[in-house]
Amino acid sequence: MAQLLQGLRVVEGTSFVAAPLAGMTLAQLGAEVIRFDRLQGGLDHYRWPVTSDNRSMFWAGLNKGKKSIAVDMTTDRGKEIVTNLICAPGPGNGIFLTNLRVRGWMDYDSLRQHRDDLIMISILGTRGGAPQVDYTVNPAVGFPHATGPEGSSDPIAHVLPAWDCITGQKAALGLLAAERHRRLTGEGQLVELALKDVALAMLGNLGILGEVMVNDVDRPKYGNALYGAYGQDFITADGRRIMLVALTDRQWRGLGKVTGLADAFTALGERLGADLNKEGERFIHRHAITEILKPWFADRRVEDFADLFNQNSVTWSEFRSFKQAVETDPDLSTAHPMFEMIDQPGIGEYLVPGSPFEFSAAEREPPVRASHLGEHTEDILSGILGLDDHQVSRLFDDGVVGGPRKG
Amino acid sequence: MAQLLQGLRVVEGTSFVAAPLAGMTLAQLGAEVIRFDRLQGGLDHYRWPVTSDNRSMFWAGLNKGKKSIAVDMTTDRGKEIVTNLICAPGPGNGIFLTNLRVRGWMDYDSLRQHRDDLIMISILGTRGGAPQVDYTVNPAVGFPHATGPEGSSDPIAHVLPAWDCITGQKAALGLLAAERHRRLTGEGQLVELALKDVALAMLGNLGILGEVMVNDVDRPKYGNALYGAYGQDFITADGRRIMLVALTDRQWRGLGKVTGLADAFTALGERLGADLNKEGERFIHRHAITEILKPWFADRRVEDFADLFNQNSVTWSEFRSFKQAVETDPDLSTAHPMFEMIDQPGIGEYLVPGSPFEFSAAEREPPVRASHLGEHTEDILSGILGLDDHQVSRLFDDGVVGGPRKG
Repeated sequence: MAQLLQGLRVVEGTSFVAAPLAGMTLAQLGAEVIRFDRLQGGLDHYRWPVTSDNRSMFWAGLNKGKKSIAVDMTTDRGKEIVTNLICAPGPGNGIFLTNLRVRGWMDYDSLRQHRDDLIMISILGTRGGAPQVDYTVNPAVGFPHATGPEGSSDPIAHVLPAWDCITGQKAALGLLAAERHRRLTGEGQLVELALKDVALAMLGNLGILGEVMVNDVDRPKYGNALYGAYGQDFITADGRRIMLVALTDRQWRGLGKVTGLADAFTALGERLGADLNKEGERFIHRHAITEILKPWFADRRVEDFADLFNQNSVTWSEFRSFKQAVETDPDLSTAHPMFEMIDQPGIGEYLVPGSPFEFSAAEREPPVRASHLGEHTEDILSGILGLDDHQVSRLFDDGVVGGPRKG
Repeated sequence: MAQLLQGLRVVEGTSFVAAPLAGMTLAQLGAEVIRFDRLQGGLDHYRWPVTSDNRSMFWAGLNKGKKSIAVDMTTDRGKEIVTNLICAPGPGNGIFLTNLRVRGWMDYDSLRQHRDDLIMISILGTRGGAPQVDYTVNPAVGFPHATGPEGSSDPIAHVLPAWDCITGQKAALGLLAAERHRRLTGEGQLVELALKDVALAMLGNLGILGEVMVNDVDRPKYGNALYGAYGQDFITADGRRIMLVALTDRQWRGLGKVTGLADAFTALGERLGADLNKEGERFIHRHAITEILKPWFADRRVEDFADLFNQNSVTWSEFRSFKQAVETDPDLSTAHPMFEMIDQPGIGEYLVPGSPFEFSAAEREPPVRASHLGEHTEDILSGILGLDDHQVSRLFDDGVVGGPRKG
C-alpha cells in the first residue's frame, strides 16, 4: 500500500511551530517535504527544550521525516537554488510552505515568474504582516483572563502553543485544498493564513463572540470546572487528582449509577428546585453537586473505582505531570503503534510519534527522525536540480551551500 | 471565481467541537456539508454558551454554512435515509464525517456495502473507542501541571478546547488526503483519528517527550513567561498588563533599542557572566531581565510605547478579557474582511467569522448562518435522494423526518 500523499513535494522555508508542524504533518502522510535553511540553521535551530549539548528536541520533533538543504540565501547563487527548488517542474512540485517574510525574490509574485501555477502557503502573525506569535495572540484574544481558579484575577497564559498547533494543521489543510484546485483547474495561488485570524475566528466558532455581544457576559474564571455542564476535578483518598465529566445525559446518569449517588442527586434537584438532567442546570449548581461527590472521592483510591468507571464508560482521567504521563500511560510506549523508539543523532534514543491517523488504505508508517542540517544538500542539488558533480563541488567549495558530503 | 472545494459533498453525523469544526471548516472552503441529527437535535444542541432562551451560540458557531436534515434514526426508514445520503452516487459524494459511535448499520463495513469507495472519517476519544473528551485528555497528558504561577502546585486546565480544535482541523486534512487518494486510485477508506492520540503525538512533536526521557526533566510551572527564551508579562503605569516577547536575536536587540535598555542588558550579562544573546540564557536569567524591564513599564502607559513598539516590530500584545477584546480590537469588527454582522434567527445579530484563509484563486466568502434543525430535510429528500412529493409527505407524516415544510 502506498502512502497517501505520495507524489506530492512540498518545499518549506519555515521556523518555530505552526509552519514546520504543517510540513511535518504532510511528511508523515507521505509527502516529500524539503526544508531549506540558512547555513547556520533557522531561527528555531536551538529552540527549547534542548539537551545539555544545546541540541533542540523541539526542532527534532517538528522536522521529523523532512529532507534538509542548507543554503546561503544572501548570495545570488543561493537564491537561485532555492527558487529552482520551489519552482521545479513536474506535477507534484511547485508547492511552497513558509512563515518567512522575505520580500523581493522570495515573495509570491517573484517566485511565480518561475512557475505560473505555483502554490504558496504563507503563515503570518497578523493579516497585515505584523509580528505576532502564539504567546502574544493568546493574551490578546482573552483566554488567559478566563483561565485559573474561580475568583482569582490574574490572567494565566496557556503552555501548549494551541494557536500554533491549530494553525499548523489548518495550513496543511489549505495546502491540500489549493493542490486539489490546481489539479482540477491548473491554477496555482497564494494562500495566506494569519495566526491571529485563526484565534479570532475561533472566538466566534465557539460562541464566545455571541456570549459577549448577545448576552453581554464576559466569561469569568471557572477553575477546572467544565463550562456549561458538569465536570470537575476531585482529590482521591490516595492524594491523586482526577477529572470527571458529565456533559451528556448519558454521562450524568452513568455517574449517578456507578457512584450510587443517583438518589442524592435527585434529592438535591428537588431541594434546589432544579432539573439536573439539563446540562445548564448542572453547571449552575455545580458546587452543590461537587459537595456530594467530594466525600465519595475522598474516601476512595483511584484503583477502587477505575475499573468500575471504565467498564461503565464514565468519562474521566487522572491529572498527571508530563513525566508521570510518560511513566504511567501504556499509550506512551511502543505498545501504541503510533510510537517507536528512535535514535535521533546528537540527542539519543527516545519515544517518537508517527502520525495519529489510522488510514485503512495506507499502512501506518513508522516515524522518521529529523535530518541533520544540510543532510540532503548534495542529493537535492544533483537529484532534483540536476547539477553535475563539478557544479555541486563548486557550490560547497564557495560556501553557497552546506552539509555533509559523500565519499 | 469558484470556491475551492466546490463539488465536494460531506455528510456529517457529529456533535460537540472537533467533528463539527471539521465540517464547518470544509463548508467555509466551499464544500457542501450536510449534518444529520436526531429529531430532537444532537447531543450538542443546547451546549453553552446559550442565550436566555436556551439557544446555543456554540451550536450556531460550529455549524455555520451547513445544511440540516432531521431524521428519526431509531426507525428502519430513518436508517435507510441516512445510509442513502451518505452513500449517494456521484464523484463528490460518499464522504462521511462522524464522531458518533453507532455500531451496526452506521459503521464503516455496513455503509460500505452501499458504496464501495466510501470515505469515512471517524473521530474517537481513544483509539480503542473509550470515551475521552478535551477536558479529560488535557489533564492526562500533563499540560495543567505546567500551567499557572511559578512555584504554585495546583494544576490548571485550559479553557480553549485546544485538542478538539487541533483534531478538528486535522480531521478535515485527513478527509482531503483520503479524497485525493480516491481521486487518484478510486479507492475509499476508513480514516480513524483519536483525540488522545493527537495530544500524545503533540507531546513528542514539541520536544516534551525528549525533555522527560532524555533530560529527565518534568517541566514545572513558569507562570506567563515564554519557555526557553525571553517573554514576560508586565503591568503598565495605567494598570494594564502587556505580554512582551524577545524570542529571536532580532526581537531581543529590538527590545534593547526601543526601551533604551540595551546597555543595561549588556551590563547585566557581564555581571552574570551570561551571554544574553543566546535565547536559553535569556530564559535562565529571565527574572534578572524582568527586574530591569519592570520599572520601565511601570513608568509608562500603554499609549506611551505602543506606536514606538509597533513601528519597530517589537512583538507584544495586551492582555484583555473576551469582552475587552471585542470592545477594543478593530480586527473584531466588520473592518476585518473575515467578519460580518449576521442575524442568526433565535439568537440575534452579532459578529460572525468566515474562514481565516485568504486564497488568491477564490473570493472570500461571507460567513453563512447555521441552519435550523431540519431546515433542509425536504430539499435533501427530494433533491438528493430523489423522493417524490408523496414519499416526502409520508415521511413527515409518519414522524420519520422533521423540519419545516414548504408551502
